[in-house]
Amino acid sequence: MKQWITAWAAVCIIALSSVFARPETDDPLPSWNPGSAKSALIGFVQRVTDRQGPDYVPPKDRIAVFDNDGTLWPEKPAYFQLLFAIDRVRQLAPDHPEWKSRQPFQAVLENDWNALAKAGEKGLIELVLATHSRMTTDEFDALVRKWIRTARHPRFHRPYPALAYQPMLELLAYLRHNGFKTFIVSGGGIEFLRPWVEQVYGVPAERVVGSTAALRYEVRDGRPVLVRLPRIDFINDKAGKPIGIHRHIGRRPILAFGNSDGDYEMLRYVTSGRGPRLGLILHHTDARREWAYDRESPVGRLDRALAEAPSRRWIVVDMKKDWRTVFRP
Amino acid sequence: MKQWITAWAAVCIIALSSVFARPETDDPLPSWNPGSAKSALIGFVQRVTDRQGPDYVPPKDRIAVFDNDGTLWPEKPAYFQLLFAIDRVRQLAPDHPEWKSRQPFQAVLENDWNALAKAGEKGLIELVLATHSRMTTDEFDALVRKWIRTARHPRFHRPYPALAYQPMLELLAYLRHNGFKTFIVSGGGIEFLRPWVEQVYGVPAERVVGSTAALRYEVRDGRPVLVRLPRIDFINDKAGKPIGIHRHIGRRPILAFGNSDGDYEMLRYVTSGRGPRLGLILHHTDARREWAYDRESPVGRLDRALAEAPSRRWIVVDMKKDWRTVFRP
Repeated sequence: MKQWITAWAAVCIIALSSVFARPETDDPLPSWNPGSAKSALIGFVQRVTDRQGPDYVPPKDRIAVFDNDGTLWPEKPAYFQLLFAIDRVRQLAPDHPEWKSRQPFQAVLENDWNALAKAGEKGLIELVLATHSRMTTDEFDALVRKWIRTARHPRFHRPYPALAYQPMLELLAYLRHNGFKTFIVSGGGIEFLRPWVEQVYGVPAERVVGSTAALRYEVRDGRPVLVRLPRIDFINDKAGKPIGIHRHIGRRPILAFGNSDGDYEMLRYVTSGRGPRLGLILHHTDARREWAYDRESPVGRLDRALAEAPSRRWIVVDMKKDWRTVFRP
Repeated sequence: MKQWITAWAAVCIIALSSVFARPETDDPLPSWNPGSAKSALIGFVQRVTDRQGPDYVPPKDRIAVFDNDGTLWPEKPAYFQLLFAIDRVRQLAPDHPEWKSRQPFQAVLENDWNALAKAGEKGLIELVLATHSRMTTDEFDALVRKWIRTARHPRFHRPYPALAYQPMLELLAYLRHNGFKTFIVSGGGIEFLRPWVEQVYGVPAERVVGSTAALRYEVRDGRPVLVRLPRIDFINDKAGKPIGIHRHIGRRPILAFGNSDGDYEMLRYVTSGRGPRLGLILHHTDARREWAYDRESPVGRLDRALAEAPSRRWIVVDMKKDWRTVFRP
C-alpha cells in the first residue's frame, strides 16, 4: 500500500510541478515546437486578452473546452475507462459464473480482443454498466481512485496519470494563466474522470462535463447517498457534446480542442459563435512515441473533422512535428 | 426602449455596488440583525477558513449551494418563472385559439387564479413547455432577458431583479470573499435563471444548477444551434437536488441554504457529509415587508424541514427578526 501512495504522490508532484513551476518570462509552451499550431495558440491568447484590441474577450467568456481521450491522454490500445472496466470484470468474475459463456464478458475473461472489438459500442456500454453500477457514488469514487494509482498502461508500463500529454498540460496552464476557465468535455463517464482530473490536469471536479449514469437518492443508515443505476442517462459524445456544454457551462466556449469525429459537433458549435474562435484537432501521427491513426481507426476515428478542418480554419496539430515531447520525462 | 435600458442599468449598478462596495473592515452582513443566525454564519466562515483550526476546509471544498425561489428572491404570488410563462401565454394566445377553452391556458387568459392553482404542478409544467419550447436556446435567452428587464412584480411594482434579498446578496458576497464558490441550485429552469443571475447575484452561468428541458443539436443556415424540445429532461427539486448537485458540482457542498420542503433532501445531503457543515432555512415570517407562510402554503411549503430543523441543527432564519432590510432600498 505504502509504495502505491508514494508512487501516486510522486505522480502528483511531477504533475503539479510541471503545471505550476513555469517561470512567467519563459516560453509558455516549451514542449511545443515552433510552427503554425504554436503560433495560432499564442496569437489567439494575445488577441483575446488585449484590452485595446478589437478581439478582446472579457475573462468571464474565456471558456476553453478539451476532449479527454486522445486529446489530453492516449486512447490506445482502448479507452482507459474500458481498461478499468475490463479489470473490474476480472475481479468480479468469481461472483458471475454466467459471464464465462456470455459476451462481451467471455471475450474479456478469455483475452479475446477480436471478439471484444466485435461487441462494439453496445458491448462497451454493457461492460461499463455491469461494472460501474449498483454501488454508491462514494464507493465508485474509491474504486476509480485505487485503480488510477495502481494500474499500469499495457504499453508504457506507467500509471495512467503519468501519460497525460505534457504539451497539453502546458497549454491548460497557459490558458488559465491568461484568465481562461478550462473545462474537460469527454465522452467518458463524468465520475470516472473526476477523482483524478484535478491532480493531473488542474481542472476542478465542477469543470468536468461527461456522460452520466442514472442516479437514485437513498438514505442508508440515516445518511443520504446516491446510488449508481445500471442505466445510461446521457452520452456526452458527438451531438451530445454541444448539449452537455450548454447544460453545464451555459455559454458558447471560444476555444475547443479535440482529436476525433466525436468532437466534430463540439468544434462546429464552438467555432461558429460570434467574435474570435479557435478550433484545434490533435492528429495522432507519431507511431514511435505514441500512435499513428486517423480515418481507419475504430477508436478515435478522425475522418470528417480532418477533411473539413482547412475550410473551417481548424488548426490541425501534428503530434510528430508539433510536439517536442509527448509525455512527461 | 431607452428607459428600460436605463432602468436595467440602474438595477445592475445598484446590485453590483451593494455586492462589491462593502469595505472590508465593516460588518460583512450589515442587513442581518445580531442574533443566532448571523452568529452561526460568521462563526462557520471563521472556523472553515482558520488554517490552524480543526475545522479548516481548503478553498476547493468550500462549496455553498443556494435555492433560488423563496431563498434569494420571493416566490409569491407565484414562482416568477410561472409569471413569465403567463405573460408568454397572453402574448402567444392570438396564434392559439384552442387555448380559450383548454386548461390551464383558459385560466391564464381569464385571470382565473383558482383554476390555475387547481392545475397544480402538472398545469405549471404544461404552461412552461408550451411557452418555453420550439425555439433555439439563443432565442429563449433573448426572451428571458427582455422580460426580466421590463416586467414588473404585481405587488411591489419593481423589476424582478430589484427584489433579490439584500441580506442574501451580502451573504453571497461574504462567502465568495472568503474563498467559497457559490452555486444556485433551483427547481426552476436553468435557462430561465442564467440570463440574469450573474448581474443580480454575481453567480456565473456555469454555477447554476436547475431543471432542464430536452435539447436537440441542429445546423440551421450553416450554423449549429440547440433547439428546446417540449419535454422535461430533469427536475432539479426534492431528491433531484442532490443528484443535480452531484452531476454538476461533483462534490458534497459544505453549506446549503433553502426555504421549503423542496430543499429538504439537499439540506440532508449537504449536512450529513464529514467535517463542518451548515444548513440554513429561510422562514418567511414577515407579512408586512414580504410574506408570512410555511406549512399551509401551496407555493414554498415548509413543513418537514421546519419540524426536523432543531434535531438536525439546521439554522432557521426568521425573516422578520433576523433581517434589518429585505430588499434593496
